[in-house]
Amino acid sequence: MMEPSDSKTRIIRAALDLMSQSGLSGVGINQVVAMSAAPRGSIYHFFPGGKLELATVALEEAERSVAQWFRGIFDQREPIAKKVESLFADAAANVEASGFNKSCPVSAVALDIDHDSERMRAVCHRIFMAWQGIIAEGLDEVPQPERQGAAELILATLEGALILSRSEASTSPLERAGKNLGDVLARRFRAPS
Amino acid sequence: MMEPSDSKTRIIRAALDLMSQSGLSGVGINQVVAMSAAPRGSIYHFFPGGKLELATVALEEAERSVAQWFRGIFDQREPIAKKVESLFADAAANVEASGFNKSCPVSAVALDIDHDSERMRAVCHRIFMAWQGIIAEGLDEVPQPERQGAAELILATLEGALILSRSEASTSPLERAGKNLGDVLARRFRAPS
Repeated sequence: MMEPSDSKTRIIRAALDLMSQSGLSGVGINQVVAMSAAPRGSIYHFFPGGKLELATVALEEAERSVAQWFRGIFDQREPIAKKVESLFADAAANVEASGFNKSCPVSAVALDIDHDSERMRAVCHRIFMAWQGIIAEGLDEVPQPERQGAAELILATLEGALILSRSEASTSPLERAGKNLGDVLARRFRAPS
Repeated sequence: MMEPSDSKTRIIRAALDLMSQSGLSGVGINQVVAMSAAPRGSIYHFFPGGKLELATVALEEAERSVAQWFRGIFDQREPIAKKVESLFADAAANVEASGFNKSCPVSAVALDIDHDSERMRAVCHRIFMAWQGIIAEGLDEVPQPERQGAAELILATLEGALILSRSEASTSPLERAGKNLGDVLARRFRAPS
């Protein structure tokens, strides 16, 4: 017999997969049932708030795994250009591995918010700020007052380049944007010679 | 009596409005009918290919108006930092005017592409490349071989910062990203002293 927690995990994974592909419209209960093979009733059992509660929990799952990925890069003792390049190269590998069919679920949801899903806005914002904070902490060359701004620039460029790579079905936009952004940031923030 | 061309225009505008809000999921025939007040039959009359044909025509409408906006900035004789700042400030004003409920319809669609809407990928890519080309032409300080890369960086950052601004319901991410990106690009590409 399947443990209830297995069903719950499969539901969350399915929702996350579907949101990484198509945002909020992907996380319809029918699609989640089809992909997770969980009984329809179990979705409402685990997520009595329905679609938006499931979407929130799934995005928080993404928050954690992306935070771990970001920490793995920004906790290193590497120059800023290297960190930025690694980040974008990893993102390129991820989007390629999905056949260019999945990218950041938080961006995909943020661009789907309408009147009925207004409460997702705060969820997306909170997650972006958490990620930005992790990047900021690792920008050793950047003076403290400028770190959040630089981290925001890196995160914005990453999210945008993911869109360009996905639409081109190519890793090139991410790889080039990472290289070019790393380069201009390194010139801006290198130790004075 | 209403001219058929008025109906068509209203259908396209409604589709564009809805896609700017929620991507492809917004452009369901029911929503377009409700928003445009056009007869349901007229949608299939003007767009026999249905939803994806309408989405394509609407994105091409966005392509033209954004191209005009970009040309208005990048055709000027202004330093690169000024152009980038103007671009992001305009985008911030636009997203604010929509109550932070609408942003770039091409990005929103690109993040919704699934098996059924695969043909939208090439449409999004072509439009992004057209916009990138307009930016590249206006980067007077940037050596020719580096212009496409710099334009790609600007476009990626713009699309990503739109997402951050929308999720924060604030113009600040766009304004800051524009200022910071303009600053690092100006330092990278200023005339050698």
